[in-house]
Amino acid sequence: MSKRILIVGGVAGGASVAARVRRLDEQAEIIMFERGPHVSFSNCALPYHLSGAIENSETLVLMNPIKFEKQYKIEARTSSEVVAVNPEDKTITIKDLQNDNIYQESYDKLVLSPGANPIVPPLKGVDKNHVFTVRNVLDIEKLNRHVQQEHIEEIAVIGGGFIGLEVAENLVHAGKKVTIVEAQSQVMAPFDHDMIQILHKEMIGQGMDIVLNDGIEAVEENAIVLQSEKKVSAQAVVMAIGVRPETTLAQEAGLEIGETGGIKVDHNYLTSNKNIYAVGDAIEVHHKITGQKTRLALAGPAQRQARAAADHMYNIPHRNTGVIGSSAIKMFNLNAAVTGINEKTAKAANIHYDFVYVIPPDIVGIMPDSNPLHFKLLFEVPTGRILGAQAIGKGNADKRIDVIATMITMNGTLDDLKELELCYSPVFGTAKDVVNVAALVGLNVLNGYVRQVKVSEVRDLVEQNAFILDGREKSEYDKGHFHNAINIPLSQFRQRLAEIPTDRPIYLHCRSAQRSYNMVAALQNLGYENVYNISGSFLGVSLYEYFTDQMEHRQPILTNYNFH
Amino acid sequence: MSKRILIVGGVAGGASVAARVRRLDEQAEIIMFERGPHVSFSNCALPYHLSGAIENSETLVLMNPIKFEKQYKIEARTSSEVVAVNPEDKTITIKDLQNDNIYQESYDKLVLSPGANPIVPPLKGVDKNHVFTVRNVLDIEKLNRHVQQEHIEEIAVIGGGFIGLEVAENLVHAGKKVTIVEAQSQVMAPFDHDMIQILHKEMIGQGMDIVLNDGIEAVEENAIVLQSEKKVSAQAVVMAIGVRPETTLAQEAGLEIGETGGIKVDHNYLTSNKNIYAVGDAIEVHHKITGQKTRLALAGPAQRQARAAADHMYNIPHRNTGVIGSSAIKMFNLNAAVTGINEKTAKAANIHYDFVYVIPPDIVGIMPDSNPLHFKLLFEVPTGRILGAQAIGKGNADKRIDVIATMITMNGTLDDLKELELCYSPVFGTAKDVVNVAALVGLNVLNGYVRQVKVSEVRDLVEQNAFILDGREKSEYDKGHFHNAINIPLSQFRQRLAEIPTDRPIYLHCRSAQRSYNMVAALQNLGYENVYNISGSFLGVSLYEYFTDQMEHRQPILTNYNFH
Repeated sequence: MSKRILIVGGVAGGASVAARVRRLDEQAEIIMFERGPHVSFSNCALPYHLSGAIENSETLVLMNPIKFEKQYKIEARTSSEVVAVNPEDKTITIKDLQNDNIYQESYDKLVLSPGANPIVPPLKGVDKNHVFTVRNVLDIEKLNRHVQQEHIEEIAVIGGGFIGLEVAENLVHAGKKVTIVEAQSQVMAPFDHDMIQILHKEMIGQGMDIVLNDGIEAVEENAIVLQSEKKVSAQAVVMAIGVRPETTLAQEAGLEIGETGGIKVDHNYLTSNKNIYAVGDAIEVHHKITGQKTRLALAGPAQRQARAAADHMYNIPHRNTGVIGSSAIKMFNLNAAVTGINEKTAKAANIHYDFVYVIPPDIVGIMPDSNPLHFKLLFEVPTGRILGAQAIGKGNADKRIDVIATMITMNGTLDDLKELELCYSPVFGTAKDVVNVAALVGLNVLNGYVRQVKVSEVRDLVEQNAFILDGREKSEYDKGHFHNAINIPLSQFRQRLAEIPTDRPIYLHCRSAQRSYNMVAALQNLGYENVYNISGSFLGVSLYEYFTDQMEHRQPILTNYNFH
Repeated sequence: MSKRILIVGGVAGGASVAARVRRLDEQAEIIMFERGPHVSFSNCALPYHLSGAIENSETLVLMNPIKFEKQYKIEARTSSEVVAVNPEDKTITIKDLQNDNIYQESYDKLVLSPGANPIVPPLKGVDKNHVFTVRNVLDIEKLNRHVQQEHIEEIAVIGGGFIGLEVAENLVHAGKKVTIVEAQSQVMAPFDHDMIQILHKEMIGQGMDIVLNDGIEAVEENAIVLQSEKKVSAQAVVMAIGVRPETTLAQEAGLEIGETGGIKVDHNYLTSNKNIYAVGDAIEVHHKITGQKTRLALAGPAQRQARAAADHMYNIPHRNTGVIGSSAIKMFNLNAAVTGINEKTAKAANIHYDFVYVIPPDIVGIMPDSNPLHFKLLFEVPTGRILGAQAIGKGNADKRIDVIATMITMNGTLDDLKELELCYSPVFGTAKDVVNVAALVGLNVLNGYVRQVKVSEVRDLVEQNAFILDGREKSEYDKGHFHNAINIPLSQFRQRLAEIPTDRPIYLHCRSAQRSYNMVAALQNLGYENVYNISGSFLGVSLYEYFTDQMEHRQPILTNYNFH
């Protein structure tokens, strides 16, 4: 007898389960129920409709019910809301949104792939029709139409996560004035505070306004009011604070919900009921590095979950390797990518870690398109196991992060990463790649050969009038330097050792920490005991200070420096 | 007492040893001897001077003796040829090329980093002054000057390896008519014959002439004569057949030479003499996958060898992970990258392997810059261990190859690759990345779930009038298809099963093998026993046939097809 498989939700996870089941079983009866009018659209590409990069919103819809039927013999019922799951008689209750009919369907196996809903707090004015969320094709069409037809010029985007930033970037490309409002002290939570300043600077440089440490309080006709009582002029508002897993159906059906608020699933994505699977943004998953449950609204993991669930229905075993959280974003001229855990997560999970922040060129320095790539690598202490990485630059950030993601998956250490033989040509990279450099520096730190100071610690050093040695050439120093830093270029360093005190700590930097590393090594070999390399060096610290100065109105620690 | 370390060769390997020794030992006396006028130049970037991408050839020189002295207290003697190594008294004999003085220097440790020499066979006319090689900055300046001053229009490049192709591409960018002459049946030996046709097509499309299976016989004033007696009009000739490791010094000093013709070294890059190290293009290295000795003229491995040798002088242990041979090249609009072993090497090493050839989009299909990425993945049978990969396309080929290189280094299998969570955004990739797709298809093959036919086998099938089922839509089929292929689009497939015979093998394809894979699964689930997916599908086969048709003047197997 053929299996009857019902699927709640017809986008990423749901459609993937359906397609996989069909490949495994030509006879199975497969029905997907989708509340909205579209199945299988490209969520992640939605924001690109706002700039016209994806001109026609219809192309966002990848499949339709007719195609599903013809190509895969899969029935896709759109405008069909599943209002109840009845595990005891293995049925679901559906409401046909076109005629309000209520009916039931029975299943052998049920798959829940309801996704997650944009969070919209119940604020004054939030129900006005110039307030938008971005979850599906209708949403983005509505927002785009409104912006164009009403000739909207100023838009507030609430929330500095992936969706918020991508929406904001595309609106800037469309010529709009955009303000990002973010409750935390930075956009893009997966990145650490030191790294993200690079992105902040780019966003401001492209004309965006960024309001941090503040939230929305009320929506007015031509402005939003913030919790700080500040007003931001805006004729359209996009709510992108975050998403909440859609667990109501599961909860009402008596399925277990995890501590993270996502639907609880086992190794095989089975819920607490052995005939009901759940996949995608609504579930909680196992984090490979922390060993903890977490939620993750990413398309890649959703697809793998879908496949695993379908396989399990047919007794095909699978490996559940957990998630590591790899993601990437393009913001104007910068590419930013991240994988594994950041400092915040490491601390929360009580994982002993250290990190390095290096800024090597993304391709051979003399090639026309060479640019610095900011790269932060976290590793476990004392094992050297790689825990995570963040990369931001004009060049190929995603490539380096994919390599680190692979290393994490394979339980690689700094020693492994150091030896990695990556493909090299002057147009693609450097003979010793960014990731190799990070591993070498990381091993120097882990082995105690080099001690380092973080970019966020430099301000204190300057204010305490520590001995900071700037190893750049004088022409570089003259264009801006830390207050009271002593300029001894690497090229004069060995002739001017007498100027370097032996009775106090020495903090060294150059532009990107490469020259200063050589000086650190020399001083240590000469018997200096208190020598520190400033991680991130002048490039990193100046970027860090640029934004914190701007945001926090602090006294600059840089002399003669033009941030632009 | 301080160590006295002499280094023969001041480019990649030699300069890296010197810099590393200085970081380990402030007191060591370090002298590099370089025959040429430059130390530490960017070999790999040389060809880019020909197009003007690197306009000023002086920028190719990264360091000079004065900088080495000032920054690192390293003495670099240029125009100094080491003419003998005298291991018994631990000295070397140097000839100062500026005054022909001969003198000796003693060492505690000696490092040989002499590199490899371009091979120039003793052919008639090969000594003419319009015949060039490309090894150093002087070479490229000479070639560039000649081409510009003599207003050369036609240039023959002998040899289709990395240097040959990069020189050729840059000359085309400079507006020259270039003919590549290659003795083998393809350019770029690290790629397999099926994959490389994509690059051949691009090169021809950009106006290059490619002559395969032919060699140079003689050089005339305005032409070269080939072994086939064909003449190629050329007013300049670049010899880029290959390189020969410079082992004369080592040999004369009684050091062991390996079977591959490279200097034999141990784990620590020590030669058969315990005070003499050798690194770089002149040595032979251990191949991680084949377990055999090999030679490899790549900058990344040379740098790691240099560091390991320096470390060994100071009793710092290192891991020797062997080489895997990762490399990459940009040719006009295509990026091509490769790692690990190809079919040829696997066969020679008697490694049991199979492979898949997939052509997924490099980024989300609906994004404006989406293009197919041709990707071939080799894996071991029956273990599924990943052995190598080749990627060619307009998009990010190097990224995918770096991921595979990481997997190979970490002894990853198809199962590992399938689960890999890479960073995703519609501008950087797809939720299920190219490498994930390749792993999934690979597992289908390894597990015997899908049987496949290679692109090179399709011609026979067409000529034998096999049952080839084309699963594309009719509009696609009408624009070109295999002779006698039956067009049953996936969208009509289940209604037209009666047209598919049960008594003979069925060979299926669509555009990129994704639709046909669904049809293969369905037919197998319906009890068909002899079903094959055509690997590479229409995209792959048509590219393959395009070039082989052109080169071998064979009867086309495609109906109504316009290759451009």
